[in-house]
Amino acid sequence: MAGNTFGRILQLTTYGESHGPAIGGVLDGFPSGIALDLGLIALEMDRRRPRGQAGTPRREDDSVEWLSGLHPDADSQGRRLSLGTPIAFMVRNSNTKPTDYDALTDVFRPGHADATYQAKYGLRDVRGGGRSSARETAARVVAGALAKQLLGPSVVIRAAVERAAGIQAIPPSAWDWANRDLSPVACPDLIASAAMESEVSRLREEGDSAGGIVYLEILGLPLGLGEPVFDKLHATLGQGMLSINSVKGVEFGDGFAGADLRGSEHNDAPSLDGTVQSNHEGGITGGLSNGRPVTLRIAFKPVSSIAKDQLAYSSDGQVQKLQINGRHDALVLPRALPIVEAMAALVIADALLLQKIHFRQ
Amino acid sequence: MAGNTFGRILQLTTYGESHGPAIGGVLDGFPSGIALDLGLIALEMDRRRPRGQAGTPRREDDSVEWLSGLHPDADSQGRRLSLGTPIAFMVRNSNTKPTDYDALTDVFRPGHADATYQAKYGLRDVRGGGRSSARETAARVVAGALAKQLLGPSVVIRAAVERAAGIQAIPPSAWDWANRDLSPVACPDLIASAAMESEVSRLREEGDSAGGIVYLEILGLPLGLGEPVFDKLHATLGQGMLSINSVKGVEFGDGFAGADLRGSEHNDAPSLDGTVQSNHEGGITGGLSNGRPVTLRIAFKPVSSIAKDQLAYSSDGQVQKLQINGRHDALVLPRALPIVEAMAALVIADALLLQKIHFRQ
Amino acid sequence: MAGNTFGRILQLTTYGESHGPAIGGVLDGFPSGIALDLGLIALEMDRRRPRGQAGTPRREDDSVEWLSGLHPDADSQGRRLSLGTPIAFMVRNSNTKPTDYDALTDVFRPGHADATYQAKYGLRDVRGGGRSSARETAARVVAGALAKQLLGPSVVIRAAVERAAGIQAIPPSAWDWANRDLSPVACPDLIASAAMESEVSRLREEGDSAGGIVYLEILGLPLGLGEPVFDKLHATLGQGMLSINSVKGVEFGDGFAGADLRGSEHNDAPSLDGTVQSNHEGGITGGLSNGRPVTLRIAFKPVSSIAKDQLAYSSDGQVQKLQINGRHDALVLPRALPIVEAMAALVIADALLLQKIHFRQ
Amino acid sequence: MAGNTFGRILQLTTYGESHGPAIGGVLDGFPSGIALDLGLIALEMDRRRPRGQAGTPRREDDSVEWLSGLHPDADSQGRRLSLGTPIAFMVRNSNTKPTDYDALTDVFRPGHADATYQAKYGLRDVRGGGRSSARETAARVVAGALAKQLLGPSVVIRAAVERAAGIQAIPPSAWDWANRDLSPVACPDLIASAAMESEVSRLREEGDSAGGIVYLEILGLPLGLGEPVFDKLHATLGQGMLSINSVKGVEFGDGFAGADLRGSEHNDAPSLDGTVQSNHEGGITGGLSNGRPVTLRIAFKPVSSIAKDQLAYSSDGQVQKLQINGRHDALVLPRALPIVEAMAALVIADALLLQKIHFRQ
Repeated sequence: MAGNTFGRILQLTTYGESHGPAIGGVLDGFPSGIALDLGLIALEMDRRRPRGQAGTPRREDDSVEWLSGLHPDADSQGRRLSLGTPIAFMVRNSNTKPTDYDALTDVFRPGHADATYQAKYGLRDVRGGGRSSARETAARVVAGALAKQLLGPSVVIRAAVERAAGIQAIPPSAWDWANRDLSPVACPDLIASAAMESEVSRLREEGDSAGGIVYLEILGLPLGLGEPVFDKLHATLGQGMLSINSVKGVEFGDGFAGADLRGSEHNDAPSLDGTVQSNHEGGITGGLSNGRPVTLRIAFKPVSSIAKDQLAYSSDGQVQKLQINGRHDALVLPRALPIVEAMAALVIADALLLQKIHFRQ
Repeated sequence: MAGNTFGRILQLTTYGESHGPAIGGVLDGFPSGIALDLGLIALEMDRRRPRGQAGTPRREDDSVEWLSGLHPDADSQGRRLSLGTPIAFMVRNSNTKPTDYDALTDVFRPGHADATYQAKYGLRDVRGGGRSSARETAARVVAGALAKQLLGPSVVIRAAVERAAGIQAIPPSAWDWANRDLSPVACPDLIASAAMESEVSRLREEGDSAGGIVYLEILGLPLGLGEPVFDKLHATLGQGMLSINSVKGVEFGDGFAGADLRGSEHNDAPSLDGTVQSNHEGGITGGLSNGRPVTLRIAFKPVSSIAKDQLAYSSDGQVQKLQINGRHDALVLPRALPIVEAMAALVIADALLLQKIHFRQ
Repeated sequence: MAGNTFGRILQLTTYGESHGPAIGGVLDGFPSGIALDLGLIALEMDRRRPRGQAGTPRREDDSVEWLSGLHPDADSQGRRLSLGTPIAFMVRNSNTKPTDYDALTDVFRPGHADATYQAKYGLRDVRGGGRSSARETAARVVAGALAKQLLGPSVVIRAAVERAAGIQAIPPSAWDWANRDLSPVACPDLIASAAMESEVSRLREEGDSAGGIVYLEILGLPLGLGEPVFDKLHATLGQGMLSINSVKGVEFGDGFAGADLRGSEHNDAPSLDGTVQSNHEGGITGGLSNGRPVTLRIAFKPVSSIAKDQLAYSSDGQVQKLQINGRHDALVLPRALPIVEAMAALVIADALLLQKIHFRQ
Repeated sequence: MAGNTFGRILQLTTYGESHGPAIGGVLDGFPSGIALDLGLIALEMDRRRPRGQAGTPRREDDSVEWLSGLHPDADSQGRRLSLGTPIAFMVRNSNTKPTDYDALTDVFRPGHADATYQAKYGLRDVRGGGRSSARETAARVVAGALAKQLLGPSVVIRAAVERAAGIQAIPPSAWDWANRDLSPVACPDLIASAAMESEVSRLREEGDSAGGIVYLEILGLPLGLGEPVFDKLHATLGQGMLSINSVKGVEFGDGFAGADLRGSEHNDAPSLDGTVQSNHEGGITGGLSNGRPVTLRIAFKPVSSIAKDQLAYSSDGQVQKLQINGRHDALVLPRALPIVEAMAALVIADALLLQKIHFRQ
């Protein structure tokens, strides 16, 4: 109700301020008897860490502590069975330096939630953005990685960077996904990747930052997933994506561009040979999965924390010069991919569990 | 849970098949003592009716019957006070001709929910699309009109057509909104409106259809509206918009285009004179309203029901030629505006009610 | 959220004031493809009607109008298949005489919700108690009858009067349930029934009323039904029962009397022959069904509307003499049985649907 | 949805197995800016600990670790302000000895959730009952103590033992509540207390156990608290109480005994002098608080873990002799009081937050 829980059957509740003792979550509604490889979760967490030349100075912070919901005994492959009870987990915020943030107590950073949280709550934890920090998304990645294991290998959820700093990759249909992990910006089009990297470097040197577009596809869904009317599959996926920090737009299939097509072009009608060649709908018709890949694009605004001087309001309403110190990414999209995938996995797993009620005992 | 309820405090549950006895809804959580002008609701329903040369053959269908939640006595201005109990309403489907749909029993119309509903439920009411019909949105318009009256005049929610059939209006910041109601396609840029109208006519004559983009703005919101993390204001608005039939994308502020900006351009920083000149964020920062207008764009795919011959699957998996009879809009955007506004009003009213919990007694 | 919705997967939302246009409900989450005999629902509604010498003057009021969620075609036995979409239904309040209630506008009847609704909402529909009237339970009976058909014949839910006006029946284990429908007070112990009837008649003649205890048993449940911790099976059954007008207590198995037993007496341990002879727990252990009959008792306070003169507060805070006119039951328990069974059926059907998530795909 | 979350606005989600790494909870929807004395929470936790001759061997286990939702700075009285974000807390299970439970792996203890959890989930954590252990209630006590501080001193919630091992205290109206804390069994009637204590000792020596009845009263509520129909104040209180381990019944006001009264006796009508002398309703009329004390009784079955030999099913369906080792309470009621009060505090705080939506902005 107060915004920290996501899902209907499979419900994730997250908690934690960026520089408080810990961030974490409780995943309830997870079926029992699922063998969980906790090592895979660490891999997902790795994908969310800072990359590139900077190294990974906070690596130790992100080790996940499992608090409940797993059978105490591991199987022969080291996997733990889910108990059907809430799976609670926690990540300590061990490497925090509160003093870094003293300067921000009385200033509202542009593009950040400082002023809006202050208005809503009357107070806030200023350290690292408190609850509004993207550090919160670590809990989503953990839960999403559990959801992926619930889904199993038949459902593939994969995201990559399609556009960054104004540079567009070739169409996803032409991608070799294996290239994604070769690209420092997680773009499978390696030529575009190099250009993105170079442009982002230039922006970073100027003390500025970039945004971009993530492409996500979900393969292997059964027909009819999603609920009618308000909980259409793309409506719940959309809410999930728009709940990620910095996301400003989401579209399915042809999305905004598809609005320019004619009906006769956009309808994914079969050919005479019984195959459907197009996927303008992005795999969802009437709010339910139609058997073709679910495809979506997610727009991220450029990173709000920039090294460049800016003007900002102070808490007493004055305008002052603001300089944001500390290391900040000039492009967050590569690290956002596991978050995007996590939200998709949570939505799909939830929809699959909910789907069970539509079949007779 | 099964997809027919929207909202957290202010909860709308809708029901009804397109050609069943009635469609309707129950709006629960509506505060007591609000004077409601039921005539204004009829005006909103009028905006949702078919327009243009075709006339309004189903006008009588859409009269709203009020079943509960209103005090029996009207005040001097004919208004009824809300009781604080569920407001139930119903619209009869009186003008239905089931025989029109016999031909569709065994065919899955491209772009429609026929195949997906069949897969999900194992059966469906084929008449007019049953539950998947956009007729369901009439219940949203009624509830949204109630929500608008709860919000009162200080909150302005208005939508218009910004792009249709590939034709783009001038930027909304340059619009004279009074022109919207002069335009048959509800576009305040009357030059673009004429071009849209002409292009849509051409498509209609060819048995084809168009899509487009709706621009929506919400003025007068207090600071701090929305909930953190999963129920960010734009996440709940996004879910609401994506739950409307034919919507394939939603973006806030600069949205997808904003992904190409630099951080220093996108941050809505104040000027030295203490004013903020830009609104790249679209009025929402960190998921909460920031005091500037909330702006969004909603992409509608072209109408799926086209007069042109198409190929389609039949229920036995064969491909057959399909001809859809009956009168269908070639562009639904003008009629969709009250639906878009209704979903926005429901989200905003819900957020305002929820906001109350954050203040001490 | 505002109290008019019950259930998690199978969700019933009800609406309506006693003397408003209609009362009704929307049952969402009902699986598709269930053949529904609507005639059986009318039978349940009959059980809820006034009995005895008074006849059934409002019989015509209680015909159920089905608004959605049912396939238009009936099967060979006249049954309609559920569509999986919300099942909406309505019962008109046709036989209302608003003038009967003018006298009650400014008085708060003892034992009724008059004063508390006025305090909560600031206004109310005084006619027949408005939303607080037990007429609201008609919607529960309709929905409960649908839930019973979803459960099918393997689950038996049956309630009877065990105590009324201070007269106690023999233990339910000794009942011949077939006698229940022979008893004007719905008590299978016909000797106790005669005594109850006589005592209630005496109270009625004195302008007074009686309360009593309903015994409910649920047979045929699978093991493990219910959810742990907060949604234990008896916690949700308890909420359901306590939500019925006039209910003041609920107990499971030995309940309050069981609190006096020793652990060695209360534990339903097996005998050496492998059978369990006792059911002190009332069929629920650790919050989940244990395979034995679920048994509960529900305490109803005496009817608040009595013909006898009483003192009452008027709306301006004065004490005045109150005379309640109109025909009122001196004992409501017989008519309450279908309501009790309906709430049980809704809880059990919901629990069974929810149970499905605990099994792997 | 899966049973581990309680409340509507103020939502508590708990997690944890008895002998897993930790138990804990997340309390969401807690308003911001409330000064919280964390020391008081420790006092409530103390009330839940084992008492009497046995000492407190697990004292160190129950220290609460605060993970989020509190402002980092304490005020001059050492209190922390709530941030309005989720308050997460954790209690380590440090003193666990898994080997104690090896013997229980293959046996289903009578009166415990062993067999039912096994049936529901297909596996379970056998150590100390896993998720079904009453250790879970520690999280409720923490959250309830926070809710009490939200309610402030104007609302008094207090519980005491009214009956234990078949021994009845004098009526609560005659109690000196200060005596409660002098009584080892938390019964304010010290004569009854001595008899209870002696009887419980006798049962303990026999390897047996006792149950009893808790009396709870809530003072200082405003008029009109609760929601109509399904979420009546006593329905939500009832669910809360019935969700506590070992609770088998709940009644309000005169409850089951009140079912024998006449309407003219039970109606809490005013006297001519404008006062109401009786409280048969237990402070709730029509589901909403009526301004008089809310009173309820909660029946606890006798403790299921007894030292005496019992028969029990083994997991392969055989009957075997069972001996339960380890220290177990012969009466849990005194330790249950903070749990009962905690559930009441959560329900009342939630109702008060929800009440805010009924008042105009």
